[in-house]
Amino acid sequence: MGRRLYMQLRRQMNDGTLCAGSRAPSTRALAAEFGVSRTTVTAVYEQLAAEGFIVTAPGRVARVASQLTPSAPPRSGRRTRPQPTLSAYGTRVEAMALPALSAGKPPRIDFLYGAVAARDFPALPWRRAHQAALLQHQPRLYYEPPVGDASLRRALQGYLARARGLLCDAEQIVIVHGSQQAIDLCARVLLDPGDAFAFEDPGYLMARRCFEATGARLLPVPVDDQGLDTARLPEDRHVRLAYTTPSHQFPLGAMLPIGRRQELLRWAARRQAWIIEDDYDGEFRYGQRPIEALHAIDTDGRVIYIGTFSKALSPQLRLGYLVLPAELVPVFRQAKRLSDRHAPVIEQRALASLIDSGAYERHVRRVRRENERRRSALLDAVATHLPAGARVVGAAAGLHVVLWLPMQGQQDEAAVVAAAREAGVGVYALSPLYAGPPARSKPRQAGLILGYASLDVEQIRKGVRALAAALARVAAAP
Amino acid sequence: MGRRLYMQLRRQMNDGTLCAGSRAPSTRALAAEFGVSRTTVTAVYEQLAAEGFIVTAPGRVARVASQLTPSAPPRSGRRTRPQPTLSAYGTRVEAMALPALSAGKPPRIDFLYGAVAARDFPALPWRRAHQAALLQHQPRLYYEPPVGDASLRRALQGYLARARGLLCDAEQIVIVHGSQQAIDLCARVLLDPGDAFAFEDPGYLMARRCFEATGARLLPVPVDDQGLDTARLPEDRHVRLAYTTPSHQFPLGAMLPIGRRQELLRWAARRQAWIIEDDYDGEFRYGQRPIEALHAIDTDGRVIYIGTFSKALSPQLRLGYLVLPAELVPVFRQAKRLSDRHAPVIEQRALASLIDSGAYERHVRRVRRENERRRSALLDAVATHLPAGARVVGAAAGLHVVLWLPMQGQQDEAAVVAAAREAGVGVYALSPLYAGPPARSKPRQAGLILGYASLDVEQIRKGVRALAAALARVAAAP
Repeated sequence: MGRRLYMQLRRQMNDGTLCAGSRAPSTRALAAEFGVSRTTVTAVYEQLAAEGFIVTAPGRVARVASQLTPSAPPRSGRRTRPQPTLSAYGTRVEAMALPALSAGKPPRIDFLYGAVAARDFPALPWRRAHQAALLQHQPRLYYEPPVGDASLRRALQGYLARARGLLCDAEQIVIVHGSQQAIDLCARVLLDPGDAFAFEDPGYLMARRCFEATGARLLPVPVDDQGLDTARLPEDRHVRLAYTTPSHQFPLGAMLPIGRRQELLRWAARRQAWIIEDDYDGEFRYGQRPIEALHAIDTDGRVIYIGTFSKALSPQLRLGYLVLPAELVPVFRQAKRLSDRHAPVIEQRALASLIDSGAYERHVRRVRRENERRRSALLDAVATHLPAGARVVGAAAGLHVVLWLPMQGQQDEAAVVAAAREAGVGVYALSPLYAGPPARSKPRQAGLILGYASLDVEQIRKGVRALAAALARVAAAP
Repeated sequence: MGRRLYMQLRRQMNDGTLCAGSRAPSTRALAAEFGVSRTTVTAVYEQLAAEGFIVTAPGRVARVASQLTPSAPPRSGRRTRPQPTLSAYGTRVEAMALPALSAGKPPRIDFLYGAVAARDFPALPWRRAHQAALLQHQPRLYYEPPVGDASLRRALQGYLARARGLLCDAEQIVIVHGSQQAIDLCARVLLDPGDAFAFEDPGYLMARRCFEATGARLLPVPVDDQGLDTARLPEDRHVRLAYTTPSHQFPLGAMLPIGRRQELLRWAARRQAWIIEDDYDGEFRYGQRPIEALHAIDTDGRVIYIGTFSKALSPQLRLGYLVLPAELVPVFRQAKRLSDRHAPVIEQRALASLIDSGAYERHVRRVRRENERRRSALLDAVATHLPAGARVVGAAAGLHVVLWLPMQGQQDEAAVVAAAREAGVGVYALSPLYAGPPARSKPRQAGLILGYASLDVEQIRKGVRALAAALARVAAAP
């Protein structure tokens, strides 16, 4: 009711019509002018006084506060006032090239790596578990420990022992917002500007960027068909950690053999470095049972294990975890608390009950079978439709393959991706995952990443056929 | 089935019984020894070969991999090997004193600030909204934009205009994991070691620690009964930002008057500094309507506004948001993406639909009335039971009050808190929220923080009575 009056008085004080220190209009006059009761005017004055616009005192006339300054007239043209600066981190991060976010309509058939099929999500069990967690009695709602919900950490401890041969205390587990936060916490807590880090080349770009954002120096380590080439790990004295994906190298797909695992651990001991083991899709191994984690053979407490629910459940859940050497638990606990206190409670409890009931592992087995079917369809379609030279690697595990196209040079990748896109098929260039330009003496062949976890078998077949046609068009182009 | 065999071979390779490079036992011998079929033995060998423990080739005998090293015998006693180091950030954070996490059984009546009553949470509307969001069709599950769900940002834009007089584009909003992450992102993106930041004294410790963790220097600015004393803002040339809680100063509870708001904005322009406005409980103002945000009168684009759902819904949800000056959007977008990609999707959509339907604002009004009742009960009980000198401040808004006890010096705070605790009542000392020790010339009186949002009216009355008795015991002590 007094809103119009309030706004007019604010405006007049703002533009200087009512000067600082001057008498405020009488309540009687305002009541008449606005056709409201004097009670309304008094309420407006009380609000303005509470906000400090006017000064009132019993028995004195109200005055406009003396410190008030009318706002400057709006400046025209571009901003001339110098703006504050960003931190070194902010400056690095702002300039950083990150993978483009898919904007607009996705291609009709999208081999997007990292996406999973919506119908694979266990919506009903999740809804039930979520509802049960929501109704679980709590005397009050307050912050939880930064390391995460105790029931989820216990459930994970059992799961990791069963599924990944990884024996740890629940106390070593910290629940985080997906593996991205796990990586970011490692970067913050372990790297300074001027330090160096060893990183798989090619490797997972969103992890590399996290480490680079700290101002530390990238030391790329080549990857071959057995994964990280541990004979070429850097002996740089500034190196603080190595990031690796030993179960299924991202993106090339090798499993790091035991000899290299041991060599990596010896290197870490020699260099006093940490090893970050990103087990991003360790659940998905076809034929063999999933290999145990690198963490399982670490006797020195140098391996930081990272797990995620983004592949087996949904990347939109934003839940993952770290298994830390005991001595790193205190610093990660504090860093997680300062970062965002803790992960959401209901979701953690829902997940704990899914794991405890066995529903999670049943779900993983089911999705593994689904993905095995998708993978077979992809391999069959590649063998049937693509030219003879095309070679798939990394298909023994995970949710994507790499497709090498020796008939095309690396410089043709963009043309292939664009031609496929024109045909309604999304495929993704491999070369951005390399740390630097390829050696001139030995130009690399074109490579594509094809994720298949969000597609059905029919789409996969159609997609590969369309890709084959697009490749033929590129090859025929002048 | 072959598990026992697999484990024995692993053990023998590990302890050197089977040497690196030596012939692996024949499949026939192992089948006989373990009473399993040769097919089982072959499957185990395939697994071991895939993992790199043995080398097989068609027509050749299997051999133990030549790079294998038996693991060292377990070391006895304490670890002697030098361990890798932490970053400067990690070192600072590990050593940092953060508020104790309530471990064990909470006191019978706990005036814990930050806790809210579980029965205030709108469980049924939330469940329905969550379920609807879960069932909403998505073609696939993939990462969302780092700034958050578009529907929630649009809903918040409208809410902020209606409730906080804050007009912004949805593009300026970034959804985060609670105000703690908002603060942490500001610290990372805006502060370097050697920079300085202005901070309310006393102030919100978890924010101060975030800024200190960057290595920046704290410049405490005194708070009086009108909030931040803007006449004493530092003119230090290294200052990059000021953190403030203008709607309801934490912890003392003043609302910053318009004159000081303008002075703060002028200071920021002069110093080229950012202002971080933490509007942590802006929804809870009793009597007057909620004052509009500082952001609303910022014409220079220097105010970063932080909002949270921790008070109006639940601190366990971990949802909050930033409203950024347009020029800061790109860097925060990248920083959020590197930190943890984005907030969970289902929860964001559930919240958006609660806001869009009006249910959220109805809920806020209902909880505001609840808290008004709790607050009245607290003020009445204090007036009735506590000694005449006891003085409540900051009760016009928010979910806590500060209780000054002039009959006790600041050095007695711990004794009062302990005596109350013995009587089953949780109250919290004020002095840890000051940046430094009080000036010797002018010893401060004891102060307590009493949060009331998680208690019912009867508990509040009983709690204040018990506190009065505890105070009397402390006063009577020799």
